[in-house]
Amino acid sequence: MISTLTKRTAGPGLTEITADVTAVVQRVAQERELDEGLCTVFIQHTSASLVIQENADPAVCRDLEAFFRRLVPRGDPLFTHTAEGPDDMPAHVRSAVLPTQLAIPIQHGRLALGTWQGVYLYEHRDVGSARRVLVHVA
Amino acid sequence: MISTLTKRTAGPGLTEITADVTAVVQRVAQERELDEGLCTVFIQHTSASLVIQENADPAVCRDLEAFFRRLVPRGDPLFTHTAEGPDDMPAHVRSAVLPTQLAIPIQHGRLALGTWQGVYLYEHRDVGSARRVLVHVA
Amino acid sequence: MISTLTKRTAGPGLTEITADVTAVVQRVAQERELDEGLCTVFIQHTSASLVIQENADPAVCRDLEAFFRRLVPRGDPLFTHTAEGPDDMPAHVRSAVLPTQLAIPIQHGRLALGTWQGVYLYEHRDVGSARRVLVHVA
Repeated sequence: MISTLTKRTAGPGLTEITADVTAVVQRVAQERELDEGLCTVFIQHTSASLVIQENADPAVCRDLEAFFRRLVPRGDPLFTHTAEGPDDMPAHVRSAVLPTQLAIPIQHGRLALGTWQGVYLYEHRDVGSARRVLVHVA
Repeated sequence: MISTLTKRTAGPGLTEITADVTAVVQRVAQERELDEGLCTVFIQHTSASLVIQENADPAVCRDLEAFFRRLVPRGDPLFTHTAEGPDDMPAHVRSAVLPTQLAIPIQHGRLALGTWQGVYLYEHRDVGSARRVLVHVA
Repeated sequence: MISTLTKRTAGPGLTEITADVTAVVQRVAQERELDEGLCTVFIQHTSASLVIQENADPAVCRDLEAFFRRLVPRGDPLFTHTAEGPDDMPAHVRSAVLPTQLAIPIQHGRLALGTWQGVYLYEHRDVGSARRVLVHVA
């Protein structure tokens, strides 16, 4: 069972999508009387990622973006793929290093996330766009 | 079918859990007469990771920890999320870059790991704790 | 249903295997009349990875390799595991940071990749070899 989420992003950084994924899982779990299972979240882009991060202090997400901005500098003279601007190749590097897909067990009909875990869409481009995320439940 | 492993860690570094995961897979495979399948291992924390690494020379795990200690320095002035100490935000960065989850095929009722592959729990905090790992077999 | 792909690599860099994975998925989907599902690709090595990257401009893959060559330098004095040469430990670090496994949803009997996404085998050793990749379809 696959559902598609389309999320509009507004530039670099993390947007929590835990509620969206949870809603899909609860709907499918109810329809199919599913108690245990596996939820796979997949992003159909190479310049945005999916990560699980702490959802208590928003500073964690800001610090993560600060770290990646320093690790993969925009306009790095190393990069030759610059057609779409100085944030183009850094976005691809981030999307190799950070997950394109997450698999989360389902227990008692719910996502079995830890207490402090949230699911995030991580936009890497300077200009945001509509990002397509598939949620597979089995 | 989901089993929970609770593993006590003792500070930064990798602890092999291949035998624990293998035991779950073999038990479930026997009970359900499962020949082929998929084993998903998921850690319910944002300051520890799961990785597959070489299990022959222990120096590989030590060098990996040395590399990450330099890549994501403790007490980096870049970080503002420092409530729990200088190792707090570096642990979150590591947990974004390293896997929260692994999916390993099951063949002939066993984990289909390569000859040199071991499954490791990777603790990122200076003080270890009890880490919860879910093992889903389907 | 698990198929094994064996791919010969020729030194560091990315080799596209989208067509190989697609062929397995289409065959299984046809045999089992599978419309929706999940394809898990797993590499049985700790010195090579699997990544999803842009498949339009080959410069993306070259720039990615250039980035990793700088991030994890060959012959770094930090490393003690050097038995197999200066590219030995860097390959293990890359294989921790980059995915060992990818899970891609199947929709309408096909891999549900985004428009610009390709599946790549990423060799990290200076001398290539025959790499074993498992493709699990369920």
